[in-house]
Amino acid sequence: MTASFPTPAGYRVLERRDISAIVAEVDTLADKLGGTPDDWETSEISDGNMNAVFRVSGPEGSIVVKQALPYIRVIGEGWPFPVSRIAFEAEALERQLAALPGSVPEKLHYDESLGLLVMEDLSGYRVARLAFVKGRRFANFAEDMGAFLAHTLYRTSDFHLTTPQKKALAAGFAGNSHLCQTTEEVIFTGPYGERPFNRITEGNEEIAVRLREDSALKQAASEMKLAFRTKSEALLHGDLHTGSVMVTDTETRVIDAEWAFHGPMGFDPGALIGNLLLAAISQPGHADAADDRRAMTDWLLETAKRVWIEFDRGFRRLASEDRSEIFPHDILDAAARDAIVDRHLAAVFEDMVGFAGAKMIRRILGISHVEDFEAIGDVAMRAQLERHALRVARRLLLERREIADMDRVLAVLAEER
Amino acid sequence: MTASFPTPAGYRVLERRDISAIVAEVDTLADKLGGTPDDWETSEISDGNMNAVFRVSGPEGSIVVKQALPYIRVIGEGWPFPVSRIAFEAEALERQLAALPGSVPEKLHYDESLGLLVMEDLSGYRVARLAFVKGRRFANFAEDMGAFLAHTLYRTSDFHLTTPQKKALAAGFAGNSHLCQTTEEVIFTGPYGERPFNRITEGNEEIAVRLREDSALKQAASEMKLAFRTKSEALLHGDLHTGSVMVTDTETRVIDAEWAFHGPMGFDPGALIGNLLLAAISQPGHADAADDRRAMTDWLLETAKRVWIEFDRGFRRLASEDRSEIFPHDILDAAARDAIVDRHLAAVFEDMVGFAGAKMIRRILGISHVEDFEAIGDVAMRAQLERHALRVARRLLLERREIADMDRVLAVLAEER
Ligand SMILES: Nc1ncnc2c1ncn2[C@@H]1O[C@H](COP(=O)(O)OP(=O)(O)OP(=O)(O)O)[C@@H](O)[C@H]1O
Ligand SMILES: Nc1ncnc2c1ncn2[C@@H]1O[C@H](COP(=O)(O)OP(=O)(O)OP(=O)(O)O)[C@@H](O)[C@H]1O
Ligand SMILES: [Mg+2]
Ligand SMILES: [Mg+2]
Repeated sequence: MTASFPTPAGYRVLERRDISAIVAEVDTLADKLGGTPDDWETSEISDGNMNAVFRVSGPEGSIVVKQALPYIRVIGEGWPFPVSRIAFEAEALERQLAALPGSVPEKLHYDESLGLLVMEDLSGYRVARLAFVKGRRFANFAEDMGAFLAHTLYRTSDFHLTTPQKKALAAGFAGNSHLCQTTEEVIFTGPYGERPFNRITEGNEEIAVRLREDSALKQAASEMKLAFRTKSEALLHGDLHTGSVMVTDTETRVIDAEWAFHGPMGFDPGALIGNLLLAAISQPGHADAADDRRAMTDWLLETAKRVWIEFDRGFRRLASEDRSEIFPHDILDAAARDAIVDRHLAAVFEDMVGFAGAKMIRRILGISHVEDFEAIGDVAMRAQLERHALRVARRLLLERREIADMDRVLAVLAEER
Repeated sequence: MTASFPTPAGYRVLERRDISAIVAEVDTLADKLGGTPDDWETSEISDGNMNAVFRVSGPEGSIVVKQALPYIRVIGEGWPFPVSRIAFEAEALERQLAALPGSVPEKLHYDESLGLLVMEDLSGYRVARLAFVKGRRFANFAEDMGAFLAHTLYRTSDFHLTTPQKKALAAGFAGNSHLCQTTEEVIFTGPYGERPFNRITEGNEEIAVRLREDSALKQAASEMKLAFRTKSEALLHGDLHTGSVMVTDTETRVIDAEWAFHGPMGFDPGALIGNLLLAAISQPGHADAADDRRAMTDWLLETAKRVWIEFDRGFRRLASEDRSEIFPHDILDAAARDAIVDRHLAAVFEDMVGFAGAKMIRRILGISHVEDFEAIGDVAMRAQLERHALRVARRLLLERREIADMDRVLAVLAEER
């Protein structure tokens, strides 16, 4: 696809058997595991597309070791990819931790030359997307993710930072541009044309052709691409789908910020809400005699709505408590400041709706499909549910300027059922 | 105001008498002047607020030497200002030259440690603002400035650059953040409150109080401030008022890009058009028995309109001729690409109108007034014309979403006369 990227001096791709020797060199990690390297067990747990992820378990504890490969793991050397992405993941992890302690795994170690990030092992957690496929609900999900969005986006935005702080932050992530470029291609452009890795479920060939000829839709997706490239509003996670969230019954953690950059505030909530809508729409495909998945569907839709509401509420609260330089209190009273925040959030909502639509389409017509649909064995059923998602997503993109709130988003979903 | 900034190693403030020795050390400069340093004449020509500017003339030619001082020249050491700004000016000058050859003075030499930029002497040129005060018209002004805007903004935007190119460009100017912060304060905030250097013409105290209590207006100005801080659409000149343009009867050159940064595309045309409107509104104050300045007023208004039209036309042409990566031709046909450009330019126009309004107000209620009004000896007349400008500017800010084109802008001006 592209020329390869330079790897750091001393970089090499690690095998499972290499890991323990490297961990042993870092006292804090060895202490955490306990015993000696001979007591340690390393297993590969990569279930994503991009990187190699290992769990190392010792007598006293376990850790997770993530190595960025110089290519996309599931594709191989034919698709080179910069190892430097993990530096941005490590940096974003720290920013997220600072913005909302407890929202991400603890960072234990970072090795630039090996492209290695070692984290707290979220053992007992599961990937939210897979849990949703199984029909599991999580009481704190919306509140936790709303708070994560509010804190990480607010505290890295011009609402909170001074201009020099914000510009330095944005510039510090400018080097993650190859990942941005990839996002732009696979989300806003690739799904609408012939691309080597695009895949379409059998039975959806016709709707795919129709959407790919839909000029208004392609223009809307392209406008979201332009917004993605030009708005520098907050430090984004950059890939906040339900596969980047790990959960227990009571806890929620965000992982995998390798796509982080300073961009449009609507992108992260759009990714999350778009993927919650996909989860909801896919539920009938997972129904069985014991569970028709109606309650699960309702919970997912309600959760999508509440994620926005909690984000919106949290953002407003942070803004009202903050005495930042951008809108000085001697010039603007509280009502004026609230009104500015209000209009800003309305603009973010519009972007969120557009990004959600684009994210939904790319998971069905593009390169990277999701377990929500892939796990549906009945291909005709899967195709039918995907078409529902495509119709909803198309309307989100086209009607994003008119859709005023999450109730309207959910109404579109019901209308297209 | 702020702590002082580190100066480069070896930096010192140069006196007029120091200049020739420094010039003599650079062969290309010495050759340009001809003769020996004893034949050279140095004069200070600073007429702006910020820097020291000298002209050095020799038997064979002349050059202009600009030194950034570690403070604002007209205020002194009480307002420290980073010398580094001239590095950004030098870099912007090269980008402008590359975007549209002949639009800026030639760059002859740059000395980082002395904060020195040496340029082609635009002898025979005059500052456009001062020429407008004198009632002079320039046949190519609108076309040249429209072309300057189209080329510099297009070629530094996501329409033309790849994502890595654009992000590297934006990051490269992130260090000019103290100047951005100053712009934000003096344009969008300072004019609406009590600030040490604000100045109001006698007779305008009442309208100043009214505008400073106008919450909707202050919110609009604040929203433009947020746009200024969050949109990264093109490399801006950053201070493109009529005092940054030098003209002859046939030629137009842009100078003084020290405020350059990657920001909202509407800001440069807003600065220029706002200042052309100020020039037009001020004309009755310069009328005398020989010239009622009606024709001059009409020419300025027509020029303001044509600057936008030429920019708009130029931008569309560049976009239609370019085969850039952002909107691939296999996905989007020419009509779709044109529609995207069309909506983008509508959004830029809205920003332009808001920025123009903000720029007009700051020149009347804020720290830095303009010769267009200052040169009007009759204070009552000056105050009255300034009130006209304030009423127009207020409506531009408040009605920027409804104002569809330059005819409407000019209609607002007529309605408030
Ligand atoms: N801190 C952790 N604790 C426990 N498990 C983890 C942790 N980090 C990652 N995992 C597991 O490893 C998997 C892959 O991690 P991650 O998503 O960071 O890798 P990736 O290769 O970047 O994936 P993607 O293709 O989604 O980009 C996760 O889905 C999760 O199952
Ligand atoms: N290349 C040039 N050729 C001829 N005259 C020039 C040139 N550059 C600057 N000047 C003259 O010097 C003046 C000051 O230059 P410039 O605007 O770059 O300085 P400044 O201190 O940054 O001003 P400002 O306060 O507007 O920021 C100009 O208004 C113009 O009269
Ligand atoms: Mg990942
Ligand atoms: Mg200047």
